Amino acid sequence: MERIPKHIGVIPDGNRRWATKNGLKKEEGYAYGLEPGLRLLQAAKRRGVRELTYYGFTVDNCKRPKEQVSAFSGACSEAVKMIGGEAASLYVVGNTQSERFPKDLLPYTSRAEEKEGDSVRVNFLVNYGWEWDMKNGWASRGIPRVDLVIRWGGMRRLSGFLPIQTVYSDIYVVDDLWPDFREEQLDRALQWYRKQDVTLGG
Amino acid sequence: MERIPKHIGVIPDGNRRWATKNGLKKEEGYAYGLEPGLRLLQAAKRRGVRELTYYGFTVDNCKRPKEQVSAFSGACSEAVKMIGGEAASLYVVGNTQSERFPKDLLPYTSRAEEKEGDSVRVNFLVNYGWEWDMKNGWASRGIPRVDLVIRWGGMRRLSGFLPIQTVYSDIYVVDDLWPDFREEQLDRALQWYRKQDVTLGG
Repeated sequence: MERIPKHIGVIPDGNRRWATKNGLKKEEGYAYGLEPGLRLLQAAKRRGVRELTYYGFTVDNCKRPKEQVSAFSGACSEAVKMIGGEAASLYVVGNTQSERFPKDLLPYTSRAEEKEGDSVRVNFLVNYGWEWDMKNGWASRGIPRVDLVIRWGGMRRLSGFLPIQTVYSDIYVVDDLWPDFREEQLDRALQWYRKQDVTLGG
Repeated sequence: MERIPKHIGVIPDGNRRWATKNGLKKEEGYAYGLEPGLRLLQAAKRRGVRELTYYGFTVDNCKRPKEQVSAFSGACSEAVKMIGGEAASLYVVGNTQSERFPKDLLPYTSRAEEKEGDSVRVNFLVNYGWEWDMKNGWASRGIPRVDLVIRWGGMRRLSGFLPIQTVYSDIYVVDDLWPDFREEQLDRALQWYRKQDVTLGG
């Protein structure tokens, strides 16, 4: 039987670089990251993945210029609603106590009951911060261990993505920028993952 | 000016695979990982690195067959003394409450005063566990943020290596096995690191 990761963490990096490359303003890049998120979810579902966690935006990200903050925050809200519509269960985790947290996402911050069927659980990190997570006694503990992290945009780092859930994760980096998502990138990641052995540190 | 990581985390993986490849018993591989550790330290020092943290062995590792546990535990003790002799400051972090912790390393579990000179600080994780670290209110907090993690042996994962200090680390993977360490691997890692930009999530 094929070895498929149960839970994939998604770091959709490179929206701003993509915008610059395509003659747009940096903050215009985020809108182009929505539809890839939906296509990734659909492709992952067809391949038997049971859970996805998207790195929406972080407390750290909010130090950026305000046009960017407003753009990614808006894109993130849209993504949650659009992508979440396809999910069996939708769960948003982040610091809701700050005004950066999009109010329209508050209804998703407790785990919903799962709908019937063989669909995918989807989690979004929204106004998330690893320090916030740790200081609040592992606030993200409702999200299980991540088997495979796929990061777009070429950087080989986790950038604060769920430090506890990723301690044993295999990390696969796609050099292409996130708005250039193609299904074959997922397939290559899954192909690579198949060859890794799970030791959980043993 | 060249951009050199101040603090490198070292995951010296692949000793057992190296042993098997060379017709030895798995547990015989660890002894071949000592001298590479010393050479890496000397090479890093010459290149201006100020601090190294070696992933010695973990609580998880101790689930392995007892010949292996005894072999890596012994190799680790030796490494600390051999490599530590070259260091400005030597610091061992791990669960000292368990009998797996080598008694002869107890004297190194508090941070020593630094010797004079432009030498390197060296930390060793010995009978370390990320769960132990977290449960004890971040027991490893005496070790600062890691700029670059270099992992030998081809795996693309952190395997519980200092989850908090590595949230922003760039991660470089060397496919060769640890006992096959060569200085040019370090140079390639440093060359790659130079091209990464530090954003600390911003």
